[in-house]
Amino acid sequence: MEILQKLEKGEIRAEEAEKMLKIEPFEELGYAKVDYHREVRTGVPEIIYCAGKTQEQICGIVKNMLEHGAEHIFGTRCSREKYEAVRKICPDMEYDELARIISRGKPAQPFNNGMILVACAGTSDLPVAREAALTARFLGNEVEEIYDVGVAGIHRLLAKMDVLTRANVVIAVAGMEGALASVIGGLTDKPVIAVPTSVGYGASFNGLAALLAMLNSCASGTSVVNIDNGFGAGYMAHSINCLAGKRSR
Amino acid sequence: MEILQKLEKGEIRAEEAEKMLKIEPFEELGYAKVDYHREVRTGVPEIIYCAGKTQEQICGIVKNMLEHGAEHIFGTRCSREKYEAVRKICPDMEYDELARIISRGKPAQPFNNGMILVACAGTSDLPVAREAALTARFLGNEVEEIYDVGVAGIHRLLAKMDVLTRANVVIAVAGMEGALASVIGGLTDKPVIAVPTSVGYGASFNGLAALLAMLNSCASGTSVVNIDNGFGAGYMAHSINCLAGKRSR
Amino acid sequence: MEILQKLEKGEIRAEEAEKMLKIEPFEELGYAKVDYHREVRTGVPEIIYCAGKTQEQICGIVKNMLEHGAEHIFGTRCSREKYEAVRKICPDMEYDELARIISRGKPAQPFNNGMILVACAGTSDLPVAREAALTARFLGNEVEEIYDVGVAGIHRLLAKMDVLTRANVVIAVAGMEGALASVIGGLTDKPVIAVPTSVGYGASFNGLAALLAMLNSCASGTSVVNIDNGFGAGYMAHSINCLAGKRSR
Amino acid sequence: MEILQKLEKGEIRAEEAEKMLKIEPFEELGYAKVDYHREVRTGVPEIIYCAGKTQEQICGIVKNMLEHGAEHIFGTRCSREKYEAVRKICPDMEYDELARIISRGKPAQPFNNGMILVACAGTSDLPVAREAALTARFLGNEVEEIYDVGVAGIHRLLAKMDVLTRANVVIAVAGMEGALASVIGGLTDKPVIAVPTSVGYGASFNGLAALLAMLNSCASGTSVVNIDNGFGAGYMAHSINCLAGKRSR
Amino acid sequence: MEILQKLEKGEIRAEEAEKMLKIEPFEELGYAKVDYHREVRTGVPEIIYCAGKTQEQICGIVKNMLEHGAEHIFGTRCSREKYEAVRKICPDMEYDELARIISRGKPAQPFNNGMILVACAGTSDLPVAREAALTARFLGNEVEEIYDVGVAGIHRLLAKMDVLTRANVVIAVAGMEGALASVIGGLTDKPVIAVPTSVGYGASFNGLAALLAMLNSCASGTSVVNIDNGFGAGYMAHSINCLAGKRSR
Amino acid sequence: MEILQKLEKGEIRAEEAEKMLKIEPFEELGYAKVDYHREVRTGVPEIIYCAGKTQEQICGIVKNMLEHGAEHIFGTRCSREKYEAVRKICPDMEYDELARIISRGKPAQPFNNGMILVACAGTSDLPVAREAALTARFLGNEVEEIYDVGVAGIHRLLAKMDVLTRANVVIAVAGMEGALASVIGGLTDKPVIAVPTSVGYGASFNGLAALLAMLNSCASGTSVVNIDNGFGAGYMAHSINCLAGKRSR
Amino acid sequence: MEILQKLEKGEIRAEEAEKMLKIEPFEELGYAKVDYHREVRTGVPEIIYCAGKTQEQICGIVKNMLEHGAEHIFGTRCSREKYEAVRKICPDMEYDELARIISRGKPAQPFNNGMILVACAGTSDLPVAREAALTARFLGNEVEEIYDVGVAGIHRLLAKMDVLTRANVVIAVAGMEGALASVIGGLTDKPVIAVPTSVGYGASFNGLAALLAMLNSCASGTSVVNIDNGFGAGYMAHSINCLAGKRSR
Amino acid sequence: MEILQKLEKGEIRAEEAEKMLKIEPFEELGYAKVDYHREVRTGVPEIIYCAGKTQEQICGIVKNMLEHGAEHIFGTRCSREKYEAVRKICPDMEYDELARIISRGKPAQPFNNGMILVACAGTSDLPVAREAALTARFLGNEVEEIYDVGVAGIHRLLAKMDVLTRANVVIAVAGMEGALASVIGGLTDKPVIAVPTSVGYGASFNGLAALLAMLNSCASGTSVVNIDNGFGAGYMAHSINCLAGKRSR
Repeated sequence: MEILQKLEKGEIRAEEAEKMLKIEPFEELGYAKVDYHREVRTGVPEIIYCAGKTQEQICGIVKNMLEHGAEHIFGTRCSREKYEAVRKICPDMEYDELARIISRGKPAQPFNNGMILVACAGTSDLPVAREAALTARFLGNEVEEIYDVGVAGIHRLLAKMDVLTRANVVIAVAGMEGALASVIGGLTDKPVIAVPTSVGYGASFNGLAALLAMLNSCASGTSVVNIDNGFGAGYMAHSINCLAGKRSR
Repeated sequence: MEILQKLEKGEIRAEEAEKMLKIEPFEELGYAKVDYHREVRTGVPEIIYCAGKTQEQICGIVKNMLEHGAEHIFGTRCSREKYEAVRKICPDMEYDELARIISRGKPAQPFNNGMILVACAGTSDLPVAREAALTARFLGNEVEEIYDVGVAGIHRLLAKMDVLTRANVVIAVAGMEGALASVIGGLTDKPVIAVPTSVGYGASFNGLAALLAMLNSCASGTSVVNIDNGFGAGYMAHSINCLAGKRSR
Repeated sequence: MEILQKLEKGEIRAEEAEKMLKIEPFEELGYAKVDYHREVRTGVPEIIYCAGKTQEQICGIVKNMLEHGAEHIFGTRCSREKYEAVRKICPDMEYDELARIISRGKPAQPFNNGMILVACAGTSDLPVAREAALTARFLGNEVEEIYDVGVAGIHRLLAKMDVLTRANVVIAVAGMEGALASVIGGLTDKPVIAVPTSVGYGASFNGLAALLAMLNSCASGTSVVNIDNGFGAGYMAHSINCLAGKRSR
Repeated sequence: MEILQKLEKGEIRAEEAEKMLKIEPFEELGYAKVDYHREVRTGVPEIIYCAGKTQEQICGIVKNMLEHGAEHIFGTRCSREKYEAVRKICPDMEYDELARIISRGKPAQPFNNGMILVACAGTSDLPVAREAALTARFLGNEVEEIYDVGVAGIHRLLAKMDVLTRANVVIAVAGMEGALASVIGGLTDKPVIAVPTSVGYGASFNGLAALLAMLNSCASGTSVVNIDNGFGAGYMAHSINCLAGKRSR
Repeated sequence: MEILQKLEKGEIRAEEAEKMLKIEPFEELGYAKVDYHREVRTGVPEIIYCAGKTQEQICGIVKNMLEHGAEHIFGTRCSREKYEAVRKICPDMEYDELARIISRGKPAQPFNNGMILVACAGTSDLPVAREAALTARFLGNEVEEIYDVGVAGIHRLLAKMDVLTRANVVIAVAGMEGALASVIGGLTDKPVIAVPTSVGYGASFNGLAALLAMLNSCASGTSVVNIDNGFGAGYMAHSINCLAGKRSR
Repeated sequence: MEILQKLEKGEIRAEEAEKMLKIEPFEELGYAKVDYHREVRTGVPEIIYCAGKTQEQICGIVKNMLEHGAEHIFGTRCSREKYEAVRKICPDMEYDELARIISRGKPAQPFNNGMILVACAGTSDLPVAREAALTARFLGNEVEEIYDVGVAGIHRLLAKMDVLTRANVVIAVAGMEGALASVIGGLTDKPVIAVPTSVGYGASFNGLAALLAMLNSCASGTSVVNIDNGFGAGYMAHSINCLAGKRSR
Repeated sequence: MEILQKLEKGEIRAEEAEKMLKIEPFEELGYAKVDYHREVRTGVPEIIYCAGKTQEQICGIVKNMLEHGAEHIFGTRCSREKYEAVRKICPDMEYDELARIISRGKPAQPFNNGMILVACAGTSDLPVAREAALTARFLGNEVEEIYDVGVAGIHRLLAKMDVLTRANVVIAVAGMEGALASVIGGLTDKPVIAVPTSVGYGASFNGLAALLAMLNSCASGTSVVNIDNGFGAGYMAHSINCLAGKRSR
Repeated sequence: MEILQKLEKGEIRAEEAEKMLKIEPFEELGYAKVDYHREVRTGVPEIIYCAGKTQEQICGIVKNMLEHGAEHIFGTRCSREKYEAVRKICPDMEYDELARIISRGKPAQPFNNGMILVACAGTSDLPVAREAALTARFLGNEVEEIYDVGVAGIHRLLAKMDVLTRANVVIAVAGMEGALASVIGGLTDKPVIAVPTSVGYGASFNGLAALLAMLNSCASGTSVVNIDNGFGAGYMAHSINCLAGKRSR
């Protein structure tokens, strides 16, 4: 509207207006378009999903971001090998081996007082849980983590009721039968994001069992992300938590 | 703790304390346990999932709730036949044919200013979308609905950008290829709850295609509920929206 | 060996011995072979699975059993219509509508003191749970039942710990996400038989979700039977419980 | 008919006629039959699918083609290792690392003015998109490519409406939720060929999610090829584009 | 651009320009948006998919179209019952029982000389084949049909080589093992659109066998639509055939 | 060759030769092509698969066959309703309710001395077993049947070793876990044709369990037909048995 | 209750009581909680599932257990490499290469006279069978093993009837078609635990065929554990066998 | 019977008779039972499936066979590495790299005049086709092979009609869409054994597409073996071919 009014007033010309209405807020790299309006639009910087990209492509994107003055860089599913390559052009890039995450820069401080809880069922689910936790933290949230609280030893979870009660959002990470999400969903009235993991063997079918179980959860207030998608859960929790803090900003 | 302190002070006896710590906050009907603490605990009354219950069982539950003075009653997946039976013992029960929902009583007024948007892709997805909308409304939320905005006519959705921007949470309901969730997820930074529907035929495999598409959404800030689970989406949106309103209560 | 020794002693002839070694311990009905040695061999009478049989075939089998003096008759998956037909030739046949079981005669008294517990997650799982309970009872076991103890309200189950502790074997019946088996498996050290049910919709895929979840249970001491196979669970529990009582017989 | 008339006129004998009617228009290599009539019949030379063939078999086929004077050679799914072996017997064979394609010779010039557009959703889909583009180009078509136009950033695609409008046929390449095909299908009235890719993880089930989504596309004028089948899409686009140019030849 | 220039010249005002840029080219019915620009934009009138719509909704859409002066109306997957209801408000609506198609009005004459061939494997595949044929004809194409040419009697198909050679596009409709598409694909160099049908039983899994076979076709120049999607195939063939006729219009 | 020699000798003309080489040995009914050369070519009359055909189509085919003097008519998957319609135009058509087969005429006498054995696991598998038996008999084979020999009572099968030994080919029909084929395959060195049936529930997935089990049989000399495909098994057994009798004809 | 009575008597304070009621009977390692009450509660020491844990994590757990004086340590799915690492901190740890099990300490002597039989179908199933046998033995049971008794050579199994008759519980391990469980289930009236293995190829789908077959077993008294879950079967057999010995302890 | 008569006559004693009736006709190796009666019983020597066996186990079996004087040894799915190990203890063992078969000794001469034809669709299917051919040849059959006759070039197959006509049994080997079996089935009245292969990618799902297609073949006289099971097809063809030669032996 602003642009159109300028045009009406003769401050800009029709050609300029057309260009402005169409302007591409992203940088074309040939193999990728880096979106620099994104952080402005959504408060979240462009995030690099490294799994399907070559070392050269990742380095190219990082280099381009640095040239545009990006302070915060965050990449998921990054092998150590790719990280080593990236570090050569961005020496202060850090790496979390377990979560396979590269990151640069830290949020100044948590933007609200709400806490996101990441709970996971078994030791083998840790990489996914950590991915969720690091993602949510990078986006400026306070995060707590409780691990190895699988439902076969329900007392381990019940012993953590106080943390559960304090959380704004809960991320429940579990492989195998994925029952953790239902049990947590029944113990809290806060939104629960269920993350099935590919942990298991045989009839777990690489996480299908946990995925189906979570989709069929009898607990209300639960929704599900893709198998092993710790990043997606962390991001969803963040966008929920943003709402909680909205009034206080 | 309170109970334990009373015991320490001698105000109650060990047997009483034990009983109170164990007390069953639900009514045993033989075939079901109706939970009357639930509304207190979570602010949400017990909700009746009618699909797997006989007419007799549903009437029994409703009767029991009425005897306990329940003002708000809400039941999903209820056939007209079952509704007719229920109405005999609860004359002011209402029925929504499309959503197959029975309900009694209405929330006084929306508890905060945040709005939940229910968007659906095609006319055939309406019953599920309506189930989501009615659920969220019954739980006290302001709800808006936009229908028939499937991605094959993207201009229909873009024409609704203003409503999309105003929403606190978006519920995206779609069958067939389920692409609506991804497109909406890319247009908003608010949490999106994707509901795959069983609308379609052939390789839709009763909603599997939409479910898988939504789980694999390339848009961040999206999570998924079970196929046709309008209720679950409405409830999840409600528990997210509660957070948004938290400070103002 | 006995037969061979008789032959050696000349008490019987080679032809007779051959026949005895080969003797068919079942009655040939053309469409079915009724096994009358079975009750002798295993302590369990022949059981009729009615689902795939015509009304005529079921009546034929029952008639044949009556002619052979069978006191105990038990049939599963029997529609009311088929039951009505059977009752005409066997007036004291009883029918359980919920479990869809026909039965005649009752075991004198429970053969040992061990108890089989049948626990089920939701009201909709009742028919399967009842099938399990009636089967185990018909085979002479003491059976207790607790219903509607789904994991989304874990306190409902914890309130029943005393019954759980008393049981020799536990049958856990659940549809949807099937988490009940894991939670119970973690609360007891007795064998748990998990029965997935087809209760649910969408991504429950007619019980597949619950089946996979139960097969992937992280609780040790759990095994699984087919979807909706209440009979199989009741029978398995019986053959386990027989071992418990072995010494006292 | 020609042959039969010659026979009638006595120009050839019955044995010769029989042989001519049966003649095998292909060269037998034992493990493969190379079809030299193909280029004549369809205007397209025999194409080598290298994935299931050994290095020796591929070299044998190339050698045989060269001996028959083939100018154009094209092979898909060829590893660098196999390419190196082929280059020894055919030094002017070229290799595209990304698309894993070997090729020799180039079409003189595009045979008509219609353009084939290859659009792909993410950087990881590039190898498949490139396979489609190179195939269509080798067959004599003009091809344009736009990359990284996934639906989660719909403005990236809308910014390319002009290219989309100019195209005769569009190939839409996408993994994960595969929504690109539907959105493009809604934006153009030209035929769209959808190529699901195996890009993704978890519930993408190696491309199944994208495949199902594309098969269920709500946009008319869309059809689908196998997962990762860039070659098939390029070929299909070519045979469609041939029709467009038919009149002008 | 035109609008913007008018604005620059002062012919219209900013508010008007904004509205015009955003204008909704469709009629809002609450449950559906009827798109009246569509015929202008794509040359194809809005088509009604009746399967997921109630009788009332279909009648509402038809009524609305008639009020807007629509001459051509076309609806697929319409039961006889729904047709009877529609005929009351639109007496000249016709019905094809086999294809379950309602239609009103006929295209003046085929717009080009290219022919679309619909070939189907067995008698049971006829409804789907007919849906494809009627769709393509309604859109203005010349269509020929050959039926019962399954590959188990390959001579039946070979006897039709002349028709096959004359076609611009071929639609191959087959259930069971779906081999027809591959065989036809090998006999022609024209684009082939494969339509798997749900005809079959057991391991056909409602068309999955044919679908997978067609996706894996070893014949180049073949692409696939959803199971039983005769409409989609007819439409795709039409948009291909349009290209063929482009020059002559 | 014969035709070509006649042409060479001038006995026929080129046009006639062409026609004769191309002659269509089937009758075109529009919806079906009835093949009258088939009985000559293969010794087996055209067989009607009734499931996907309308009553009118079946009657049309039968009528056409009668007009061509067909003595033997055989149709599978025919409902009683369709049979009643057929009987009106062909009064001596017979019907087997269990196997759902219509047939007219009987083979004079078995063409060789080899016997085909049909063995089935349970009473519920009878319809499929009977379809196999009737098919093989109609094609002129001697057939014996043994029923209810499921592997859970292995003595029932072992008691029939003599029949098993006498058979030329064995058809093993079983649903549920489909183990019968493996056990029989281990007891005989004759070819075994395994027929999975859709008998079962839950994780039988309509015969998938039996199908997979049979495909994975550890017994050599076993092959498999489609689920419930009694006809296919009978036909395959026939074509094997033909070989056995070849020399003696 | 005991704790509450102490509190009533003033022997402890409210804070202490609260802590005691909540006490965590496990050691927190950050990535795992080691449960030391478990052996007391269930008579079974904590068992380490090594597959999803890093070398460091396993060593950490073992070290912690040794520090707590654990005599019996048992770990499954342990690679030789991980074992070598563990042996450095626990020199008397033993390793079974076939079963991939690490163990330390041996049960004094079998706790009752009941025997568990492990039967397996083929040589390739041995690792899973051995895992089951070692697990049951470690838990204090007498175990016998019979191998290579697949159903295609039924006489091999029948020759072992005496061992079968002596067993308290039977574990039937089989891949491919998994028929062993049904046949054994028919030969004994003792509980049978079926273990599908991933042995096979093609349509065995990594054990799915055997799993489905076993779930559909027509033999009563059979239940199933996850594919390749030898440990689970051994544990389940143990908890059943405990019941058998209950009276004699 | 013979044994029993000897016992009656007193020629042997009861103990001896019992032992003879039970005698184990196989050698116990601990991990395998080698069956030496097999060649006598079925005319086929024990065959070693090497895939799931360790090098040590295969060598042990071969050694044991040599010690028992076995002249013919045959093993499938044998890696070159395992073969090298076997050759050390059996120097005249031969190896076919393509089919991965080890064999020793050759059948004297084909036992009858019937020929088995192995036809395969593409070069990549060769290993499976060769496995079938070598198996059938080892068992004493005459075998011919035709390769690369996929249905997309139907003339390649039609050019081989003469070989097809001469065959007693046809083995049709094909991956991808598996249509070869149907086409061959329609061209011959001999039994056709269809072998799906795992050749393909994407929606071939490792051979599932071809398997389903073949199971749904519309051609009568076709049955199917497991994916890639060349051995099974060769064996089945052999047991059919045995019947053909029966009379002449």
